[in-house]
Amino acid sequence: MTLSDITAPIKDNLKEFDSYFDKQLSTKVSLLNLILKYITTKKGKRVRPTMVFLSARLCGGINDRSFVAASLVELLHTATLIHDDVVDEADERRGIASINARWNNKIAVLIGDFLLSKGLLMSVENKEFGFLEVTTRAVKRMSEGELLSIDKSKRYDLDEERYFQVISDKTASLIATCCQIGALSATSNSEMHKALQDYGENVGIAFQIRDDIFDYLSKSTLIGKPVGNDLKEKKITLPLIYALKNNPQESDKIIKIIKRGKLQKKEIKEIIDFVVDNGGIDYAESKAKIFVDKAKLAINIFSESPEKKSLLDFANFVVDRKS
Amino acid sequence: MTLSDITAPIKDNLKEFDSYFDKQLSTKVSLLNLILKYITTKKGKRVRPTMVFLSARLCGGINDRSFVAASLVELLHTATLIHDDVVDEADERRGIASINARWNNKIAVLIGDFLLSKGLLMSVENKEFGFLEVTTRAVKRMSEGELLSIDKSKRYDLDEERYFQVISDKTASLIATCCQIGALSATSNSEMHKALQDYGENVGIAFQIRDDIFDYLSKSTLIGKPVGNDLKEKKITLPLIYALKNNPQESDKIIKIIKRGKLQKKEIKEIIDFVVDNGGIDYAESKAKIFVDKAKLAINIFSESPEKKSLLDFANFVVDRKS
Repeated sequence: MTLSDITAPIKDNLKEFDSYFDKQLSTKVSLLNLILKYITTKKGKRVRPTMVFLSARLCGGINDRSFVAASLVELLHTATLIHDDVVDEADERRGIASINARWNNKIAVLIGDFLLSKGLLMSVENKEFGFLEVTTRAVKRMSEGELLSIDKSKRYDLDEERYFQVISDKTASLIATCCQIGALSATSNSEMHKALQDYGENVGIAFQIRDDIFDYLSKSTLIGKPVGNDLKEKKITLPLIYALKNNPQESDKIIKIIKRGKLQKKEIKEIIDFVVDNGGIDYAESKAKIFVDKAKLAINIFSESPEKKSLLDFANFVVDRKS
Repeated sequence: MTLSDITAPIKDNLKEFDSYFDKQLSTKVSLLNLILKYITTKKGKRVRPTMVFLSARLCGGINDRSFVAASLVELLHTATLIHDDVVDEADERRGIASINARWNNKIAVLIGDFLLSKGLLMSVENKEFGFLEVTTRAVKRMSEGELLSIDKSKRYDLDEERYFQVISDKTASLIATCCQIGALSATSNSEMHKALQDYGENVGIAFQIRDDIFDYLSKSTLIGKPVGNDLKEKKITLPLIYALKNNPQESDKIIKIIKRGKLQKKEIKEIIDFVVDNGGIDYAESKAKIFVDKAKLAINIFSESPEKKSLLDFANFVVDRKS
């Protein structure tokens, strides 16, 4: 199962979306046009528009409103990535220089603000206040989730409850938004809206757990992130939370190593072994599986269709993916 | 005339606003609460809520909706300042350490995003879609204006038309928004909305011209910005644009000095003298005065009242202020 199998039912819609999206992004500022062209040359995986379109299909069909919804989430997502690159001082994105590297921080922050307001304005102009409410709430949750995750005073006694709060706000909220506004664009049936929101929320949580597991697996170099990256940033995620709880005798020692910082290869290996030996990976994988099952269950109300199959496949893909 | 004379008619409203605003900003994230408390301890001049309240008064009276409007612009303004401090690597704001200096860039960017979405969400929750439309459009204009102003390819041949486009988008749009949504909160009379929007737009332009003049006056150390700061950043503003046009023989030489960058005291003095000698300051002052008169004219439709007097006084204050 690959992403292109999953997007097969909406292949034409995604193609139409690409030109629709590019057309929306034209302004009177030449520097801005230049940068926007630079951004849109390298298309991302368009996971978020895909979620919007599949959800809309499931609820009756894709229409003009679905295109507004898809643009809104893609603009928002792009804005977030550009701001993230500033914050993380990242030099590359999608194989080309990041905006902050190619231009500078100031321009990157402004482009992010522009894309965000552009998305919100598109919704306002199309009187899509429902989209706006759902999306603004997600933006707020995303910033709260990020802030909660870097709240130092709580960092080393992070428990499962707080972990799930963080990833639900930080990651799942935007995926839930995509599914929810896709549904909103196609039907006024609130049972369907709720079903797709639930689907997105649970898939989003599973997605982030899987991402956090990658940090402990040598295979994870495939996703372009070196192993132990989260640990170096003192970021404690589910596999470690479980292992620490499962082996309280050694937990103080492990926390001390992480707290000290500047981890060497040997120390990272020690922590990874600790996590694996104490069942952290298995536990996180089983948890991810539970959320995937919840996601699938949420869309049980819909009858069988190619788009439903795609959403079910996407849920499996999220935990089965190797990168 | 001081700001506290101008705010006299709405003194109680501003006081009520302070506690209303603080109450809105409480979250489940303890780090966030800590930082928000830090931000709200040092109140700014609250120019933007003042504009909202005076406009609402002029259009019939301050009500609950006016408080939502005032919070929205204050949240937005605060978010912008925090992002600006990241971009400019500023260490201080309102006499205390900036968020990026006290915490770090990541937290500052996230707090900015949080405040922005919080403001938009407040409008959504109160079904204030009119506020939202006006405000989102302003955010888009502000980022476009900033980008236009740093568009290198156009920097040295900046003409008056482009200068006014930049300051109108960058500065005037938010002040116009304050007046417009203050009016929206109090009346459905669209003639009044338009009048106050015009007032705000023109006052905002005059305000920015005055700010740009300060960069050429030794007195301007009062506003905490050293003289010649814009020049060091290769920012060409109205006084210089006029002087260059007025003395084309010397203009190439002056542009060459600015282009080269790393300006020394002696060079800054040379440019300032050039601007003064060629009538740049006088011209900019006369232009500012024209916009102030336009602003006053815009609110001619209202009969006399203490709040109208305050708005007229504010227009004068904008150009007469010494800091």
